[in-house]
Amino acid sequence: PSEDLAQERKRATFDVQELSYALNGGKEMLDKKHRFAEILAKTTWGDKSRRYFLTREEEYVGGLRAALGIWEKIKSEGLSLEDGALMRSLVDFPGGLELHIGMFIPSIMSQGSKEQQAKWMPLCMGLQIIGTYAQTELGHGTFIRGLETTATYDKQTQEFVIHSPTLTATKWWPGGLGKTATHAIVMARLMVEGPDGRMKDHGPHGFIAQLRDMDTHLPLPGVTIGDIGPKLGFNSVDNGYLSFDHVRIPREDMLMRFSQVTPEGRYVPPPPSNSKASYATMVFVRADIVKNAGSTLARAVTIAVRYAAVRRQTAPAPGERELQNCAATLLPLLAAAYALTFMGDAMMAMYRQFEKDRDRGDFSALPELHALSSGLKAVCTWITADGIEEARRTCGGHGFSRLSGLPTLHQGYVQNVTWEGDNNVMCLQTARYLIKALAGVRSGKAVSGSADYLNAAASELAPGARSPATCDACWEQPDVAGGALRHAAARATAAAAETLLAAGGGRLAFEGKPWNDNTVESIRAAKAHCAYVLHRTFLDSLAALFALDTLERGGGLAALLEDGFVGASQAAALRRCHRQLLAALRPNAVGLVDAFGLPDYLLNSALGREDGDVYRGLLDMAAASPLNATQEGPAWEGVLKPVLAAQPRSRL
Amino acid sequence: PSEDLAQERKRATFDVQELSYALNGGKEMLDKKHRFAEILAKTTWGDKSRRYFLTREEEYVGGLRAALGIWEKIKSEGLSLEDGALMRSLVDFPGGLELHIGMFIPSIMSQGSKEQQAKWMPLCMGLQIIGTYAQTELGHGTFIRGLETTATYDKQTQEFVIHSPTLTATKWWPGGLGKTATHAIVMARLMVEGPDGRMKDHGPHGFIAQLRDMDTHLPLPGVTIGDIGPKLGFNSVDNGYLSFDHVRIPREDMLMRFSQVTPEGRYVPPPPSNSKASYATMVFVRADIVKNAGSTLARAVTIAVRYAAVRRQTAPAPGERELQNCAATLLPLLAAAYALTFMGDAMMAMYRQFEKDRDRGDFSALPELHALSSGLKAVCTWITADGIEEARRTCGGHGFSRLSGLPTLHQGYVQNVTWEGDNNVMCLQTARYLIKALAGVRSGKAVSGSADYLNAAASELAPGARSPATCDACWEQPDVAGGALRHAAARATAAAAETLLAAGGGRLAFEGKPWNDNTVESIRAAKAHCAYVLHRTFLDSLAALFALDTLERGGGLAALLEDGFVGASQAAALRRCHRQLLAALRPNAVGLVDAFGLPDYLLNSALGREDGDVYRGLLDMAAASPLNATQEGPAWEGVLKPVLAAQPRSRL
Ligand SMILES: Cc1cc2nc3c(=O)[nH]c(=O)nc-3n(C[C@H](O)[C@H](O)[C@H](O)COP(=O)(O)OP(=O)(O)OC[C@H]3O[C@@H](n4cnc5c(N)ncnc54)[C@H](O)[C@@H]3O)c2cc1C
Ligand SMILES: Cc1cc2nc3c(=O)[nH]c(=O)nc-3n(C[C@H](O)[C@H](O)[C@H](O)COP(=O)(O)OP(=O)(O)OC[C@H]3O[C@@H](n4cnc5c(N)ncnc54)[C@H](O)[C@@H]3O)c2cc1C
Repeated sequence: PSEDLAQERKRATFDVQELSYALNGGKEMLDKKHRFAEILAKTTWGDKSRRYFLTREEEYVGGLRAALGIWEKIKSEGLSLEDGALMRSLVDFPGGLELHIGMFIPSIMSQGSKEQQAKWMPLCMGLQIIGTYAQTELGHGTFIRGLETTATYDKQTQEFVIHSPTLTATKWWPGGLGKTATHAIVMARLMVEGPDGRMKDHGPHGFIAQLRDMDTHLPLPGVTIGDIGPKLGFNSVDNGYLSFDHVRIPREDMLMRFSQVTPEGRYVPPPPSNSKASYATMVFVRADIVKNAGSTLARAVTIAVRYAAVRRQTAPAPGERELQNCAATLLPLLAAAYALTFMGDAMMAMYRQFEKDRDRGDFSALPELHALSSGLKAVCTWITADGIEEARRTCGGHGFSRLSGLPTLHQGYVQNVTWEGDNNVMCLQTARYLIKALAGVRSGKAVSGSADYLNAAASELAPGARSPATCDACWEQPDVAGGALRHAAARATAAAAETLLAAGGGRLAFEGKPWNDNTVESIRAAKAHCAYVLHRTFLDSLAALFALDTLERGGGLAALLEDGFVGASQAAALRRCHRQLLAALRPNAVGLVDAFGLPDYLLNSALGREDGDVYRGLLDMAAASPLNATQEGPAWEGVLKPVLAAQPRSRL
Repeated sequence: PSEDLAQERKRATFDVQELSYALNGGKEMLDKKHRFAEILAKTTWGDKSRRYFLTREEEYVGGLRAALGIWEKIKSEGLSLEDGALMRSLVDFPGGLELHIGMFIPSIMSQGSKEQQAKWMPLCMGLQIIGTYAQTELGHGTFIRGLETTATYDKQTQEFVIHSPTLTATKWWPGGLGKTATHAIVMARLMVEGPDGRMKDHGPHGFIAQLRDMDTHLPLPGVTIGDIGPKLGFNSVDNGYLSFDHVRIPREDMLMRFSQVTPEGRYVPPPPSNSKASYATMVFVRADIVKNAGSTLARAVTIAVRYAAVRRQTAPAPGERELQNCAATLLPLLAAAYALTFMGDAMMAMYRQFEKDRDRGDFSALPELHALSSGLKAVCTWITADGIEEARRTCGGHGFSRLSGLPTLHQGYVQNVTWEGDNNVMCLQTARYLIKALAGVRSGKAVSGSADYLNAAASELAPGARSPATCDACWEQPDVAGGALRHAAARATAAAAETLLAAGGGRLAFEGKPWNDNTVESIRAAKAHCAYVLHRTFLDSLAALFALDTLERGGGLAALLEDGFVGASQAAALRRCHRQLLAALRPNAVGLVDAFGLPDYLLNSALGREDGDVYRGLLDMAAASPLNATQEGPAWEGVLKPVLAAQPRSRL
């Protein structure tokens, strides 16, 4: 198989190394990635040879050891935070510190007062405490306004009393909460006595609560904590549950940067700029998710494309082992991996630009940025989650083996469609923006940014509008393929606006029954918009393949035909062009995945090895399976022997 | 939440119990299912309370114990084989005996001679030996003709020498092979010296080989065996690898019913009827897979529909918690679960009819039955595998918890798209039949059976053909919805035939490069055909929803528009009808899943409980998680304490 892969590499029609440098931020960065991979593979906590064989408890302990190992390395070798992040992505072993690093520290930095930062940051950075972020409850996730946990201010003692009034108020899901975290930022409804002597509910606010005794690591009195049990994936993280029975924390431990409760019990609400700041944070987080979606899909595609190149099954003639159905799955995914990678970079650039604008007091880009990042968070994580599984299935039986790396990759990724804003809910944010923007355009208010094509919605959607495609190859042109995506997006937004208007009795209602009864059309609009934006971020034939594939799969073509924007012969040309693109891209497939520059250490896959020696890889990795610890296996003595040996064996 | 579910149940507009009896084969059968569930839950091996917490080794041992427990019960209580199968489906714990029961015994019965059956069946039924079925190799799965393992006849000793000449000849995947099986049916190329003195390769044949010593359970000399390591799911089964170093077995242990090697070394080829018999077996196996796809999807839908009915998130107003997007996912899946269930029954009936015909010497139904069962195997397992995941995602975060039952259900099911014939390969079988049938029709040869609509292909595909839909509600009519599916199917077959003809230079080539270059269109044709057939098997509004959903998702609508079979206003009407059907079916959702009659014991799901008490369920099940064995968790002593306790704690 190794020679097959070498042969494939020769077919590339572009300079793989150049592209690889460009994708990885230069030769130096690429070299560093590979150097780090070598170093990490040799550490006890970074070694991956037994990663697929661990029990849940071993995974949990291993994930923590890895995080602490990296933390230690950063300190002892004085590495940068970027280097640390690179190491974490290579070791690829999430653990009980995820939320400490990803949410607890950032929340203190962004929502804590100067004094709070001075108090808590040294404890955080010195790992004297480990924090998590506890928002979701058993009964309430997406619907944050429904949270039931309360923090009631007690003027007498100047403390907050944190309490879980019901079973459904139990916090559920926070990472690291189960067995690791000593502290948590707890989102709870702030209850303060008003001037009229009645308790007033100010809605969810953040509080820093200590959960465990620092010496024994046991839960403090009034605090009930546990692990929520095994999950689809992500099992090295101890997601936990937590309930409070009237637990008191000092007044100073409410996060006080934006809203406060004074010692005498007066509530100071946050300034309006607060919500803008938190939107900005979300944009950043989502840009990161998009970037990550690209690199994760790149991993899956690297494995599957390399394996497809060596899977011969002793085909009678060499040409006969090319299967159109496998290529038709893998090449569009390869295009998508590039699209997502570029989109992540583009979003980061938009975010940086926004930061500059903001420092000049200009927040005007924020609504668009927020809407766009919401929809892209959803669309990109869907593409990646589903794409890993599609890629896995092209590997046949061996894709079902954990040694291929693909099952674990999928199981550790798919929660991205749910957390950080459920994807459907994210799409609805984008849809709300789009529908409002279209309504604005129709009443004479122009829109700028990624939805600016809506300014021309009237002509775009006029009965006579037609795609300019006049030949098969026309569909490779960015303006034709992109134009079709644009038309599909404009049309979807208009359709969603129309059903919403009808449901609201002539009024655009953005909540309640009319809104909830029309989420399907709205989500469709957000998806179509994001597909168009994704297509705009990258060039050449990969982009065309991405566009045509999106139109063919997503029902976009049906919409264009229904509109008369595309006629029957244009649609037929589109499909022929799609097939021609697949054939044209085929020789570059291995080169394009090689260009991602993913070390074998990261892939941890018998099928995706750079050298193509997949069958040797499967055998070697399987030999270490715990079931192989003995020849006769763990059921022999207690279970099988009594049965098999019960009868006379003379006849055998 | 329990009251919410009770409320929902009141909304049903039909008699749930009546339907439940009908679906379950009568009241007696349904009662038995629930009685068995109660009995099994109380056995040590059938108890499921720790099922989601087991290590791989525990799963393996547990799966074996469960199989042996049922085996024992059948014997001691004189139960029927059907009762045994019912118990296995309820305990739902595949193990090292799967292949013994499902492939080893059936192969001896169908391919062994009378003498071989007399020798081996008592050993099998008395569990004196445990067998598996070893066909797939590291390098060869789908492409059976490529198998490399050899069985060379040695005239001198009257033995076969079984040998793995290469690394890629290593057997890989057989269930129970890793640590359980003592014997295997090994598929190997039969090599016999011809009259010319040269070794002749007669292709793959089956041989019974002993693998392990009966007293020590250690591999016999020359035999290398092991477990292939962890998989995406199905980890209670010890799929294994196996290679032979010139291992000798007696001549009598080749499966001799159809082909033989005489003592003096003459090869007797199988009679032509042999291949018909093996096709018939495949039809039976696939009917079973279809039936199973229905009951598995029913499980997933039961869990998700019940959970959706109680997930309130403290919505401000009761009506506001209905989300169109969740209903738009779950109701079509519910329709599909019914479609698959009915289709499984229908296929079994077709198979029984075929058996009768066969006994009269009439094999005429076989080609159609084989083609249909291939495609339906693929389409139904795709619907179920993807449907479980879609249903899981509608459950938000809690769907990611293993305690929901959905992750394990998916992971234990998804291999169905790969094994027993990879789905794409299955679709290609169907496509081959359809394209040939269409070519036959065009040259005047009528086709009967499920593809009989191709007889009218000329008029169906004539430029002027139009759907008769003239109103929204028209799309609920079986002939309109079904007619559209039929048109889509005829069109897809014609399109596949056309591209194949073009690729073959005017000739229909069913193999080699032209065929492999056109698999995408062929697979599309098979899917469209199967969707039409599925739709025909069941009635009423569920069928209409299934049809419209299939057209909307699968790109079928685009094809109909492209053809001019459906105009823009008809397409818009279809989409409106789709929405109306969703709304109309909504009140019956819980009733329709209740009617499946699935015991809580089978579901093993905190979210799918019949009483709706989901949050209590999550908490109770999580309490038993092994990470909760101690309050401070398994990382405290060795990992966390040294770090957290390293610094002075005075400041906290
Ligand atoms: C692995 C993992 C780790 C997590 N870590 C943390 C953590 O560290 N801290 C923490 O606080 N939480 C955490 N969570 C919780 C996570 O934030 C929530 O699960 C997520 O926000 C989804 O909310 P939910 O579970 O309530 O889903 P639900 O809202 O119940 O979603 C159910 C279904 O309803 C749909 N839906 C919901 N609302 C709407 C709407 N308004 N319109 C249309 N459709 C809607 C959804 O699309 C979904 O299909 C984690 C979750 C997971 C899976
Ligand atoms: C859980 C599990 C249990 C199993 N148990 C057993 C067992 O007990 N005994 C046993 O012998 N085997 C067993 N197998 C092996 C199984 O039968 C094979 O994995 C299966 O037949 C698929 O073959 P493959 O792995 O070679 O896939 P491949 O053929 O390599 O498939 C790779 C890709 O190529 C495509 N493809 C392959 N051929 C064609 C074609 N001609 N045209 C178009 N597309 C094609 C497929 O669609 C797939 O996308 C098991 C497998 C699994 C996953």
